[in-house]
Amino acid sequence: MPRYAAIIEYDGTSFAGFQRQQNQLTVQGAIEVVLKILEPDFTSLSGAGRTDSGVHAAGQVIHFDLHKSWNTFTLTKALNGNLTGHPIAFVKVVQVDEAFHARFSAIKRTYLYRLVSRPEPLVFERSHAWHVSFKLDLEAMQAGATYLLGQHDFTTFRSTHCQAVSPIKTLDAINIQKRPYPHGYEFRFTIEAKSFLHKQIRSIVGTLVRVGVGKWAPEDVKTALMKRTREACGPLAKPHGLYLQRVDYNPDPFSGSS
Amino acid sequence: MPRYAAIIEYDGTSFAGFQRQQNQLTVQGAIEVVLKILEPDFTSLSGAGRTDSGVHAAGQVIHFDLHKSWNTFTLTKALNGNLTGHPIAFVKVVQVDEAFHARFSAIKRTYLYRLVSRPEPLVFERSHAWHVSFKLDLEAMQAGATYLLGQHDFTTFRSTHCQAVSPIKTLDAINIQKRPYPHGYEFRFTIEAKSFLHKQIRSIVGTLVRVGVGKWAPEDVKTALMKRTREACGPLAKPHGLYLQRVDYNPDPFSGSS
Repeated sequence: MPRYAAIIEYDGTSFAGFQRQQNQLTVQGAIEVVLKILEPDFTSLSGAGRTDSGVHAAGQVIHFDLHKSWNTFTLTKALNGNLTGHPIAFVKVVQVDEAFHARFSAIKRTYLYRLVSRPEPLVFERSHAWHVSFKLDLEAMQAGATYLLGQHDFTTFRSTHCQAVSPIKTLDAINIQKRPYPHGYEFRFTIEAKSFLHKQIRSIVGTLVRVGVGKWAPEDVKTALMKRTREACGPLAKPHGLYLQRVDYNPDPFSGSS
Repeated sequence: MPRYAAIIEYDGTSFAGFQRQQNQLTVQGAIEVVLKILEPDFTSLSGAGRTDSGVHAAGQVIHFDLHKSWNTFTLTKALNGNLTGHPIAFVKVVQVDEAFHARFSAIKRTYLYRLVSRPEPLVFERSHAWHVSFKLDLEAMQAGATYLLGQHDFTTFRSTHCQAVSPIKTLDAINIQKRPYPHGYEFRFTIEAKSFLHKQIRSIVGTLVRVGVGKWAPEDVKTALMKRTREACGPLAKPHGLYLQRVDYNPDPFSGSS
């Protein structure tokens, strides 16, 4: 059976997360309904990241197998044409080798966290960025972030429900940008790693915000990390500021023309 | 009675336009409900622009009179605090001279029209930009726009329901920018005039898109303008790409610190 890989965008607001669940609207479930229209015996797809409820994706990657050998342009049109009721878009579909796996072949995942600091509530992006009314110190957050780079035991920064065997992960990058936003500022956290623990990014952003607002010193991030206990973590950042931005593979199945 | 002027943002998606209507949720109606919480005998407010259903504002200006002399910081907090159920935000409130009128004192209105051209449907901005799947020629649209600058009889470009006494208006600027958008391009039309006819901007954008897609030559815009008949107009651009971006006054009541 031919295997297909796809880059998809979705607005997580109305979904109970990516992963299929009984009696809940999920991204995987919505797409599988459409794939079953194309091939009634279709069973399931795999995604690179199991994003939580409310979390968005600008570059989630999935793979799935179909009996038919589709022209990928036609397949993209058919999928988007049947998904019009949902805020999900297939932006690129390619045929891949059967050894390709959206989750296990990934060599890097990039997440974006959007936070807007301004006195007034958000209007246009209420579900697309975390709004805070207090001011944040960019340099202090950047200093705090440096303690998290590299390989560490991230027990402090993972959900107590995390099912990963090991709490050891390697953070490759945390970049924080400050840019003007109407009547305030937007802070964009870009975080890269091969893989993440459950709620790791929201735990990191929530902790860095505690530094940015001045409640913690940058060095307190190191102390929290070394404590290796969930209690040492700052408050969890809201899900609706988080975007799965990009997943990298080697070789890159999407590098050719679609 | 002290008079107050305010700059407000709103997401027009869920409103039947700005202007109060019986049994319809409107921006004016929602704000007046809150002003009646502050002062039960409050009657009505005035806005600079009567935006249509689905049209947004990043810089609408309103004015209203209250009995009490409010600290404007406190008043802003009270208004936003009571509006949390609606996508409306007061971003600046100042006390103004009683001669100030949001609509009649305005010397310039600036509207933004956002159009995204890409093959895939929009996900995050479905209600915030007009999506087209065809390509557009920026230079052709810019060439077509030049014919509309200055003072003209805009009968071709106004709604047949427009109540303005005269169809003569003066367009001060039409700037069109093309910028990258994920998997496509965004076109931003910025249009300035002292005042506009009903549906004038959406008529202009729809007509310029007809030029951009190659169905009309830029010169056909001049022909359409000179025909002075609604039938000569291109198709109306969708309301959800339009934003009332800014209203100017002289003197500017918002120039001081809030």
